[in-house]
Amino acid sequence: MIRISIDAMGGDIGPAVVIPALQSVALRRNDVRFLVYGREDAVRPELNKYPKLAPIVEFVHCEVAVRMDDKPSQALRHGRWKSSMWKAIEAVKNGEADACISAGNTGALMAMSKFCLRTMATIDRPAIAAIWPTLRGESVVLDVGATIGADAHQLIDFAILGAGMARALFGMERPTVGLLNVGVEEIKGQEDVKEAGLLLREPGKMAMDYHGFVEGDDIGKGTVDVVVTEGFAGNIALKTAEGTVRQISSYLRAAMSRTLMAKIGYFFARGAFKTLREKLDVRRANGGVFLGLNGIVVKSHGGADDEGFAAAIELGYDMVRNRLLDRIEADLDLFHARHPRTGSRSAELAGDNE
Amino acid sequence: MIRISIDAMGGDIGPAVVIPALQSVALRRNDVRFLVYGREDAVRPELNKYPKLAPIVEFVHCEVAVRMDDKPSQALRHGRWKSSMWKAIEAVKNGEADACISAGNTGALMAMSKFCLRTMATIDRPAIAAIWPTLRGESVVLDVGATIGADAHQLIDFAILGAGMARALFGMERPTVGLLNVGVEEIKGQEDVKEAGLLLREPGKMAMDYHGFVEGDDIGKGTVDVVVTEGFAGNIALKTAEGTVRQISSYLRAAMSRTLMAKIGYFFARGAFKTLREKLDVRRANGGVFLGLNGIVVKSHGGADDEGFAAAIELGYDMVRNRLLDRIEADLDLFHARHPRTGSRSAELAGDNE
Repeated sequence: MIRISIDAMGGDIGPAVVIPALQSVALRRNDVRFLVYGREDAVRPELNKYPKLAPIVEFVHCEVAVRMDDKPSQALRHGRWKSSMWKAIEAVKNGEADACISAGNTGALMAMSKFCLRTMATIDRPAIAAIWPTLRGESVVLDVGATIGADAHQLIDFAILGAGMARALFGMERPTVGLLNVGVEEIKGQEDVKEAGLLLREPGKMAMDYHGFVEGDDIGKGTVDVVVTEGFAGNIALKTAEGTVRQISSYLRAAMSRTLMAKIGYFFARGAFKTLREKLDVRRANGGVFLGLNGIVVKSHGGADDEGFAAAIELGYDMVRNRLLDRIEADLDLFHARHPRTGSRSAELAGDNE
Repeated sequence: MIRISIDAMGGDIGPAVVIPALQSVALRRNDVRFLVYGREDAVRPELNKYPKLAPIVEFVHCEVAVRMDDKPSQALRHGRWKSSMWKAIEAVKNGEADACISAGNTGALMAMSKFCLRTMATIDRPAIAAIWPTLRGESVVLDVGATIGADAHQLIDFAILGAGMARALFGMERPTVGLLNVGVEEIKGQEDVKEAGLLLREPGKMAMDYHGFVEGDDIGKGTVDVVVTEGFAGNIALKTAEGTVRQISSYLRAAMSRTLMAKIGYFFARGAFKTLREKLDVRRANGGVFLGLNGIVVKSHGGADDEGFAAAIELGYDMVRNRLLDRIEADLDLFHARHPRTGSRSAELAGDNE
């Protein structure tokens, strides 16, 4: 049995999207149980619409809901110990749930997750990993926005975290890993990326194959299973790709409705367009996974509909089922035993928890 | 009359792409003259195929050609003073040409351009600007790979350079300018971007309207005319978008050839698909513009065909015609008079020119 804690108050819509998603997941995964946190007056009416959920859902009322525009510090101040977001995360910490899903605001969710779950013993900073559809299938890309900048050791932590996720989700023993970089050689300032590359080339027993540097266009090609970068560039890459998909979809719609011939063509090819739409559907790959914490937290897109939120839940479910955290810890221990790092960890902890 | 110097030896193909491009441009721009640099044995046979070019082309033999895989330092060592790339840039410096176009390797072209033309008096670092097709038309995005990292003053220099380019190319008086950032608030490390935002908000007489922060998906939307970022994130955004376009084109081709109905649909809608292909044609927006130097240098994509190379030439032509450099200098003088910066300029120069 896999137990998932749900922050029902997150996202642009809230319970009206979250509760139908539980129903969808329950139909596909028969050993799932839900711990649902939210305001009684908002969640209960939705739950009543899905009586089949009753035996597998436990609902807990929370007075406070973190707002989508709360700053992380505000969310911590107003929502710690009592908001639906906090309670859902805390359920993972207390061992009542195996993973937590929220469509609430990313900054608040990350701040609370760090505060409540703490980072893994050898990890300085958590990362957010995205699943990126590619020409060869799917890849893990991280960090897509947890932290800005990363030194060589942090990039290697991200590589280990991402490789663990790829092993858990894609069922591969040794995922290929690439460091995102720019093509121009001898450019100033990529010392951290270069140093990380050297460390990853060292022969070792880590369960990954280091490919080398990759560029932005390698992500969509699926050149590697895991693309590693710091959060600023990673976030911009992710958002730029999403924007490009929307842009081309818009061009395509316009082109197919401009002339009678195009409309006739669209009519015949509508099955093919449906296939294409599914390929481009961002809902299918919904869910940013927080890695590096003592527990699994998945951030659903705030604008996701019920199928999108269901995809985020199933992502969390699959990672629990495939023992994500166990897979990560062994590689982390291996690397940090060989490359001990002193001082920064305690400094980071002190800085994070103000 | 506008005089363009051409490095005929750059690119994956070289003269067989470059010389036909001159012919295409000459047919569309009747006041253009070319100074062509390259190896006699490679360029002359191509020139002989286009006798109409004879009155408007002056050819200069150069023994050395910079290779596509030369490192910038190698290119400077072997190619300074004598390679076709150097000679084409030097023609701009000497006032023999108004702009230089090369499809040679980016690092070498930037290194030689900096060494030969020097940066403008108030500019620390040059930038490479790309023209990005958007849902609203086109935007200027910079830096897409000249330098990694940028402090607040350098980001403002980029804003001024990009706004000047938008005014020269799009014929607008006050382009809107956005700073590329990540959506999550209170994230560590974006101090430079924040500080640049504050400086750009100061009331002033600069010929631009500062919009605020934009995210990756705003680029394709065309939210602003000029998107400003440092070179690492900018390069990754550009390459990621290119990769996404190729990925979707591949999905579309596969979808349209999978079933008979789809093929029939494609037949009827082939005009619409042609329109779409033209929209997505990266050749139309070919050309990275080096900004911040005392002269105009345009880098064509190494894999561009003759129409792509022609687009890069015409980009250079249009910027000369619309007095790009004049438009930039006034704003630079205005900003730097109010925000003088001491010390770093000379240090940077010393470091750059080893």
